[in-house]
Amino acid sequence: MAGNLILAQSGGPTAVINGSIAGVVMEALRHKEIGGIYGAVNGIEGVLDQNLVDLRAEEPEVISGLRSTPSAALGSCRRKLKADDYQKILDVLKKYEVRYFLIAGGNDSMDTALQMHKLARSSGYELFSVGVPKTVDNDLRVTDHCPGYGSVARYWAISGRDAGRDTDAIYHPDTVKILETMGRDTGWITAAAGLACEAGDDAPQLVYVPEIPFDQEQFLGDVDRVYRKLGLVVIAVCEGLKDKSGEFVTASGRKTDTDSFGHKQLGGVGDVLCDLIAEKLGLKSRFDKPGTIQRMAMVCASEVDREEAYQVGKQAVRLALAGRSGVMVTIERQPGAEYRVAYGTGDLTEIANLRKDLPREFMNAAGNHVSQAFLDYARPLAGGPLPPYVRLKKVAVPKR
Amino acid sequence: MAGNLILAQSGGPTAVINGSIAGVVMEALRHKEIGGIYGAVNGIEGVLDQNLVDLRAEEPEVISGLRSTPSAALGSCRRKLKADDYQKILDVLKKYEVRYFLIAGGNDSMDTALQMHKLARSSGYELFSVGVPKTVDNDLRVTDHCPGYGSVARYWAISGRDAGRDTDAIYHPDTVKILETMGRDTGWITAAAGLACEAGDDAPQLVYVPEIPFDQEQFLGDVDRVYRKLGLVVIAVCEGLKDKSGEFVTASGRKTDTDSFGHKQLGGVGDVLCDLIAEKLGLKSRFDKPGTIQRMAMVCASEVDREEAYQVGKQAVRLALAGRSGVMVTIERQPGAEYRVAYGTGDLTEIANLRKDLPREFMNAAGNHVSQAFLDYARPLAGGPLPPYVRLKKVAVPKR
Repeated sequence: MAGNLILAQSGGPTAVINGSIAGVVMEALRHKEIGGIYGAVNGIEGVLDQNLVDLRAEEPEVISGLRSTPSAALGSCRRKLKADDYQKILDVLKKYEVRYFLIAGGNDSMDTALQMHKLARSSGYELFSVGVPKTVDNDLRVTDHCPGYGSVARYWAISGRDAGRDTDAIYHPDTVKILETMGRDTGWITAAAGLACEAGDDAPQLVYVPEIPFDQEQFLGDVDRVYRKLGLVVIAVCEGLKDKSGEFVTASGRKTDTDSFGHKQLGGVGDVLCDLIAEKLGLKSRFDKPGTIQRMAMVCASEVDREEAYQVGKQAVRLALAGRSGVMVTIERQPGAEYRVAYGTGDLTEIANLRKDLPREFMNAAGNHVSQAFLDYARPLAGGPLPPYVRLKKVAVPKR
Repeated sequence: MAGNLILAQSGGPTAVINGSIAGVVMEALRHKEIGGIYGAVNGIEGVLDQNLVDLRAEEPEVISGLRSTPSAALGSCRRKLKADDYQKILDVLKKYEVRYFLIAGGNDSMDTALQMHKLARSSGYELFSVGVPKTVDNDLRVTDHCPGYGSVARYWAISGRDAGRDTDAIYHPDTVKILETMGRDTGWITAAAGLACEAGDDAPQLVYVPEIPFDQEQFLGDVDRVYRKLGLVVIAVCEGLKDKSGEFVTASGRKTDTDSFGHKQLGGVGDVLCDLIAEKLGLKSRFDKPGTIQRMAMVCASEVDREEAYQVGKQAVRLALAGRSGVMVTIERQPGAEYRVAYGTGDLTEIANLRKDLPREFMNAAGNHVSQAFLDYARPLAGGPLPPYVRLKKVAVPKR
């Protein structure tokens, strides 16, 4: 049916989410059922505040340039909607004759898309509400993976390898380097550092994810063992590591560090573990915590991820036009040795507010590194092999 | 004169230092006065321990591949030499008939090159000792700049811009992001984050370097002012910030964190300033501290820097063959609008153990951002303009 379209971006920015705007716009322009192509400024707040922009007014170079521009060009937000917000949103949608409502985001955003689908239906307003998957956390259910993840995975494959070469270069009898990755509840991002390993003892030698409770004794034993073997240790750890009781291994004490969803801002696990290693093992250690740089690094973007972010935008428009609502675009990996995907749909009731943990079989038996199954899963998403680095073969000069 | 050559790498790894090995080898292969082309494993320790490798035995693809491989392929060290070490080194050089002695490193390494020059001369042993400049810190005197710096500068130009876009995307009434850069004593690296600014209010809006004593009141005033204007603040700070009394604003308390030169390992300034901002201004803040990733990021390497790292290696060989000793290769920027360099020489007595601070005129009058003079200096080193990002023009949809 004829009507206008609204697209909102939500949650944390990524290297490729703007590619989804480009996909939505490019596809919407092809269909005359769609009148206005509106962007909501700062996510759902832009809808509530009627702060909408006309995406038809943008130059074609800008729309295509979005595919090389990280962050969230429409602006995002992290607003927890209240019960009466949904009705307000519906009122705005009606007033602007919006029939196509697309939100690019994670599990919180998928709940917004679901609630709007339900409310519109119960109100008798014909609305096609479709979710566009987007999260570096890769924790949306039903879909094989999420746009944004492949690029942060490539970031850690590259940076993990670099960190390993860096640690390797300085001959110290005592070097431990901790790579602190994002990941509030899941270890998907941390596991991606495992892609840095090209040979047996390559960095990172240890990988810890929040799905496996952090055990201090095991951790210290692991570090000590690797150190005795190699004289150095590179460790990837998730900012969201939790102990057996489910408590974060570290949590900021700053009172300003809780967002409107009640999520505590994490960080500091690298520092805590450096202290632990110094105290218990007497080893010199340091941590790298690139923070938000990791999710924004277009220089590390995966070509596969960039293309998929674009395609899920296009697919969302097609689904809405086909009369689908209450669904999210999914990426379905096709069988076969070569990586290929198809785009499908997932029911938002199976996605909204839920999360997909890193499966246990994606970690090794000891729970301190990734498994081959994970590498097979993640390598294609990260855009395949890294640019090659060389090593000197170091033929010894005979001693005199 | 005929003899063998030793090359040692020293200090922290960089994205481009291996290019200098390639330059040394490629040039040395052209001159028949040079017999063995030896690499010292783990810097000067490799000389002391007679742990040398034959660089003639490496495949040509590996030598050229070094130009795309970050870190220090021969291994590095941070060993403070004792008085009798120099004589031991000279004994090794004599035993291996080494006449050409090259060290790639920073101000400590240049002192080693100088001491070996002096000792050989006073001992009547003909040795040509030449320094190859290498430091992300960019703090070697006499030379216009140092290989390694251009790439870390590009890293911060890119990452500063990304961090700005990231902060900008999430509409919060309270967002401060701190970018913690390397730089023990000098603000060269931190200043490079200023290259991220493409327009007036672009991130980072504030830049603090250790050459200008940190004043808490001024800092809080600056942050508050930018926040009131823009609703967000991105701040680049140097890990080595010092207060008026010359004390580090932060220093690790871990007992393992002092190296053999007595340098304290820094870090934590981001955390300290986040606490300060939360406490005094009540603003939510977070910090990104990419740590060693910043100096190793080949994905951000400057083409200018890569080429210069290669050329200083070649030039060091030429200088040694021309009978120069006790000198370092310098990069001399040529006059004119277009960036061009020539390679010259600096006397090691004017370089060894000394450092070049960021000149005051490279910062603005308030001391809280870089000046145009700095941008003019640094932009070509960082390899010119960044890949373009777009912005939506955001034409408002009329309110209904």
